[in-house]
Amino acid sequence: MSVINQALATAARLHQGQLTKPQGSLGKLEELAIWFAARSNSAVPARLLPAVVVFAADHGVAAESVSAFPAEVTGQMVANFVAGGAAINVLAREAGASLSVADVGVASSYTVTESGNAVLFRVPVRAGTANLRIEPAMSEQECNQAWTIGLDRVQEALAGGKSLLIGGEMGIGNTTAAAALICALTHIEPEKIVGLGTGITAQSREHKVQVVKDALARARAAGAVSAKDWLVQVGGLEIAALAGFYTGAAEAGIPVLLDGFITTAAALVAVKNKPEVADWLLASHCSDEKGHGHALAALQLEPILQLGLRLGEASGAALTLPLIQSALALHRDMATFSSAGIATK
Amino acid sequence: MSVINQALATAARLHQGQLTKPQGSLGKLEELAIWFAARSNSAVPARLLPAVVVFAADHGVAAESVSAFPAEVTGQMVANFVAGGAAINVLAREAGASLSVADVGVASSYTVTESGNAVLFRVPVRAGTANLRIEPAMSEQECNQAWTIGLDRVQEALAGGKSLLIGGEMGIGNTTAAAALICALTHIEPEKIVGLGTGITAQSREHKVQVVKDALARARAAGAVSAKDWLVQVGGLEIAALAGFYTGAAEAGIPVLLDGFITTAAALVAVKNKPEVADWLLASHCSDEKGHGHALAALQLEPILQLGLRLGEASGAALTLPLIQSALALHRDMATFSSAGIATK
Repeated sequence: MSVINQALATAARLHQGQLTKPQGSLGKLEELAIWFAARSNSAVPARLLPAVVVFAADHGVAAESVSAFPAEVTGQMVANFVAGGAAINVLAREAGASLSVADVGVASSYTVTESGNAVLFRVPVRAGTANLRIEPAMSEQECNQAWTIGLDRVQEALAGGKSLLIGGEMGIGNTTAAAALICALTHIEPEKIVGLGTGITAQSREHKVQVVKDALARARAAGAVSAKDWLVQVGGLEIAALAGFYTGAAEAGIPVLLDGFITTAAALVAVKNKPEVADWLLASHCSDEKGHGHALAALQLEPILQLGLRLGEASGAALTLPLIQSALALHRDMATFSSAGIATK
Repeated sequence: MSVINQALATAARLHQGQLTKPQGSLGKLEELAIWFAARSNSAVPARLLPAVVVFAADHGVAAESVSAFPAEVTGQMVANFVAGGAAINVLAREAGASLSVADVGVASSYTVTESGNAVLFRVPVRAGTANLRIEPAMSEQECNQAWTIGLDRVQEALAGGKSLLIGGEMGIGNTTAAAALICALTHIEPEKIVGLGTGITAQSREHKVQVVKDALARARAAGAVSAKDWLVQVGGLEIAALAGFYTGAAEAGIPVLLDGFITTAAALVAVKNKPEVADWLLASHCSDEKGHGHALAALQLEPILQLGLRLGEASGAALTLPLIQSALALHRDMATFSSAGIATK
């Protein structure tokens, strides 16, 4: 694991104190600049080169009617990403981030039309997970295979000179898997974590809570202990890939900007597996999905935005990017009191 | 006053429902797109062309030691704006907004070095206000003159095709004037509104509370009733210009993105003077300055960001701009369920 550089954080903090503004008056923006300095090679880091990778896969638990949308939407949305029509296409473009999509286990067939908006990697491990309510979502080998796809995406980003990684996800049914993982790894009860996902009714949510309870009981009986055990039992292929992606980023020393509920569940798996991964995670937003705040708190992360988003795809993280770039631009480009000849207190 | 177009809001809401995402999953971003549609000429508004105007002036009340910085910093910061070294220069550039500065009453002399970063209008009404603790801050005529400078800036923005206006301010001592105005216009007591400004001590704040109380008692005894009376008595020249700027924007039908504590005080004056101005105001952020939340609540405005900022200069509003442009880009550029061939619920 890469280690963060506290000397650069200290130097960045000193630099902030010399800029032409009252001390502390840029609030969270000052903390962000210092956070990135400690994870770069300079007290005054360069503009970030961000890469967004959306991992897509299907979930056998979708058969339990836990989503407001049919399962084939996963593949249809992958096609939409490649065609350039999804929210993340627009937001990545606005933020100047590269965008790629990795199909790590979409079950339905779909046809893509290249648009130049997103690169697609078709590397399905299997045609969606099994129904986690009644059996393990995947085998250990499949889990490792998906995890490795995440590691591979980090290597590609490194080769491309990227300095910030954003993971996103698409997978009908994946708020159920993410909720189960968060419950398992935080010991918080399903009632507090299971939410409305894409927009199910309160009654369907009660059913979803039961599905998660059943999955947890089954996995516990099957002997799940470690974070990777839980990932195999109640996770998802895109969640395993994301956990690998975050672990690889921490190993390579590239900061990660988290998105919403599912990516935070994946981050929790990565951190429970290797606690040092936590040093490289930054939370972009707190979503409207019920358990997201709890999951962020378990990671001791404070979100930058709170705008009632609940879309996934990396949309909240991409939306936060310009704000982070602004924080770094202020840190780089503002005059100092002495250079501008301005009186201090 | 221009009237907002509810038919366009309705059409924009329908359009949001067709985009490839669960209904409501973009939260506040959906509301923003609809808000701007109602204030444009289309259900799918074009990218905003934003103009930032920073109004600068001095305050006689600075003699009461209500700020952590000496009064000459006002002029020095105007020079910094023109030279391109202030926070607002960086943020306006990041957000693609034009930037100009209007000196409506800086007391100290300052020398500017053109950098192409900000246009300066030197139109001082007088060399700073009088000390509002012991006498009216300005005359009615001076107040009208400053107000008109704000109206003029709107006319210039209109001529330049701008579609979003952001006012900012610089003026050592101006949180005292803004606090007095907010107290007068909301009937909230000074203890709840007076904050630490640029970073004074708790003891200095107690003194600042007393200064505001004295100013309010003096102005009340002098017969202040209307918002403009209060502006003359306890306001500031840059606050009067901002109130004119916001009023002019509403008359011209150009949306306004508010910044922090001082600009919100100016907006409160404009709205108390002409309630229809409120229809054109959007809040960017809630600052760390104690009374800002109360002032926003009095205007029934909900801030988009809450990041512990307390700098002014229009910095919080400029920081919020990319997020708003992203909300509009999503509204414009996302595929619909039918165009992308995606199944719905």
